[in-house]
Amino acid sequence: MTTAPLSPTPRSSPRRHNDRAADDPAELRSILDEALICHLGLQVDGAPRVMPTGYGRIGDQLYIHASSGARGLREAAERVEVCVTVTLLDGIVYSRAAANHSMNYRSAMLHGPARAVTEPDEKWQALRALTEHLAPGSWDHTRKPSKRELAKTAVIAVALDEAAVKTRIGGPGDEDADVADSDTWAGVLPLRWNWGEPEPCVQLAADAEIPRHVRDRVGG
Amino acid sequence: MTTAPLSPTPRSSPRRHNDRAADDPAELRSILDEALICHLGLQVDGAPRVMPTGYGRIGDQLYIHASSGARGLREAAERVEVCVTVTLLDGIVYSRAAANHSMNYRSAMLHGPARAVTEPDEKWQALRALTEHLAPGSWDHTRKPSKRELAKTAVIAVALDEAAVKTRIGGPGDEDADVADSDTWAGVLPLRWNWGEPEPCVQLAADAEIPRHVRDRVGG
Repeated sequence: MTTAPLSPTPRSSPRRHNDRAADDPAELRSILDEALICHLGLQVDGAPRVMPTGYGRIGDQLYIHASSGARGLREAAERVEVCVTVTLLDGIVYSRAAANHSMNYRSAMLHGPARAVTEPDEKWQALRALTEHLAPGSWDHTRKPSKRELAKTAVIAVALDEAAVKTRIGGPGDEDADVADSDTWAGVLPLRWNWGEPEPCVQLAADAEIPRHVRDRVGG
Repeated sequence: MTTAPLSPTPRSSPRRHNDRAADDPAELRSILDEALICHLGLQVDGAPRVMPTGYGRIGDQLYIHASSGARGLREAAERVEVCVTVTLLDGIVYSRAAANHSMNYRSAMLHGPARAVTEPDEKWQALRALTEHLAPGSWDHTRKPSKRELAKTAVIAVALDEAAVKTRIGGPGDEDADVADSDTWAGVLPLRWNWGEPEPCVQLAADAEIPRHVRDRVGG
């Protein structure tokens, strides 16, 4: 696990709203561990492509998988430059001026070459991390990948070395004149997400018990 | 508002999971109107960059804005190819096999050249759409952008012409052998989001009433 501060490079140093940037590796890992999906960006046929996908993290490596036939990921595995962005939207900021409306958020942006994960043990651990990130407790509970499933699955890794964290928290940033002149309401509307009740597969026995790792997630 | 079906091009035609693709323009608009943020991808200095940002839609045009000094958007305004992806995560699919774990989601991916919006009326309407998408009812309630604010703000448009919609709904897609052999729990854990209680700006009078457009959103 990296303990060094995030290494700022020109492209990972936010040029605007520097007050919103953090170079704390713990904040980076916290965002990656809390969010469920990332948006993977890469260049395909000379044009950008941004794909939503799951991921898993082990130490300072972020793992992404897809069918080995999937176009974008196959190209990403050839050490091309990728950008992985993870965003948690925390609220909408209502300001007194339309132009000052904003959002509270935490986001992480990783830059780097994608590395194809082919070493069997690393690939296995990566798939475990991906499954556990999506559904904590599921790896031990489910049938593990077969040789055929492993062959069908491509995994890439992106290091956390070159990363930018941006966050905005707090209330509106209106100008003094707007605060003084206006009795317009301003504030934050927080956005929260939570789990609904588990919906068992119709092929399960009617009395199948919901296992603890699923119940704990809903309750947590 | 476009009523033609989405025009599939090679890059907007999903190659995998074709069952998950939809070519219904109403579904595209529905995803864009329900989500709050997009991830804008473009190539900067030879490497991909994926930025989370707000947006607004008018008819078949998606509008994105940023400070006119912001690097990525300034480059995007020069008719470069961009990809805009909007994702709604609806739930986590727990399967009997680790490899069949999945997510229920609705996503839209737009491809196309970014167009700088410089005509004053279109820019004004775009900023109105952006504000109303972020905070419905706010445009009429707040101070409108000043000349200085307009000059500081760059707006780009991306047409909805070349778009791919992908969705997954429903329960796990396990193989028959796993369903037969295993009493492993499988099902969907739905993900829901909702608004918390409005948090008024500390500079408001203590008895400031929360306006209807904010109350309606929380209640809705």
